[in-house]
Amino acid sequence: MEYYSESLSKLINELARLPGIGHKTAQRLAMHILKVPKEESSALAQAIVEAKEKIRYCKVCFNITDQDVCRFCSDPRRDDKFLCVVQEPKDIVAIEKTRDYRGRYHVLQGAISPMEGIGPNDIRIKELLLRLQQMDVEEVIIATNPTIEGEATAMYLAKLIKPSGIKVTRIAHGIPVGGDLEYADEVTLAKSFEGRHEI
Amino acid sequence: MEYYSESLSKLINELARLPGIGHKTAQRLAMHILKVPKEESSALAQAIVEAKEKIRYCKVCFNITDQDVCRFCSDPRRDDKFLCVVQEPKDIVAIEKTRDYRGRYHVLQGAISPMEGIGPNDIRIKELLLRLQQMDVEEVIIATNPTIEGEATAMYLAKLIKPSGIKVTRIAHGIPVGGDLEYADEVTLAKSFEGRHEI
Repeated sequence: MEYYSESLSKLINELARLPGIGHKTAQRLAMHILKVPKEESSALAQAIVEAKEKIRYCKVCFNITDQDVCRFCSDPRRDDKFLCVVQEPKDIVAIEKTRDYRGRYHVLQGAISPMEGIGPNDIRIKELLLRLQQMDVEEVIIATNPTIEGEATAMYLAKLIKPSGIKVTRIAHGIPVGGDLEYADEVTLAKSFEGRHEI
Repeated sequence: MEYYSESLSKLINELARLPGIGHKTAQRLAMHILKVPKEESSALAQAIVEAKEKIRYCKVCFNITDQDVCRFCSDPRRDDKFLCVVQEPKDIVAIEKTRDYRGRYHVLQGAISPMEGIGPNDIRIKELLLRLQQMDVEEVIIATNPTIEGEATAMYLAKLIKPSGIKVTRIAHGIPVGGDLEYADEVTLAKSFEGRHEI
């Protein structure tokens, strides 16, 4: 049974399609939208339409951008010798926040996952190899997630790229800074032993 | 520093203004919106605009509706002898789901809260008293929340309405069905003792 008027039901249903938003939360968000001034709700609707219209993938690295080429690819101050391979655009944001890395990026837009039917041809590997032929890269840093899919993708890429003589590295796994050995899972702890270095 | 393009930043910021949506969640929602087919994102934007345009308050009970008078007020099968007073439109939905109550509603659109500067004149109490004069109500059931504000509002309303001879009742507090005495807070437990009845 419908307890709400049609237009409100529709709003709740549309909000509930967002990831991590259940029906109760959608209801709460809809009520909020009805309460705020019209300018605020219009701004949200407008932002959705505008983002969807303007944003596309960078022709070079497949990051999201509202230009033809994204800011990281068009920035002449970035170092062409390093190419960091990530799964998603949001991973770039996480890495940029460290302010440590000044090289280029390549977004795979996913990871190899036989379970979900995602093979090497479904992500931007072909485009990565093409870039490596055209650029003068010294090191490819593979920053895919430390999950089964991310690791499999890293292994696959390393195998493909290494014969060309380019150095391929993988970001380190280990105990997070500020973390506690006691609460680290055994795989992470094992990885942190593997990756130990002299001090 | 801005890591995202302008239109994406804008979308993230607008989403983050929603209640309970932090910056990380807004980022995740924005990425989802960019990924889904255009029809889906348009439907969401459209639903926001449409709901905002169409939905207003019921002239009688101040529930939200897309008509002049809401479905509960216009339904001739509902019992005019009972009037249930709630804080918010969503409380009506919760009560309707029990399928137990067949009377009318009145939405206060808030509760008295001196801390937030909300007095009796800021919520729909005047309109409630007017309705009581015009309708032939036998019982007013006060279903405001069991919070300090909700209780204060209930007390205030009882004091106002009782002199007119109309029966005023308050919904019962107690241990939730399926709940465990051990985990009930002491105020709820005390209320459940107060409200005990013979079996």
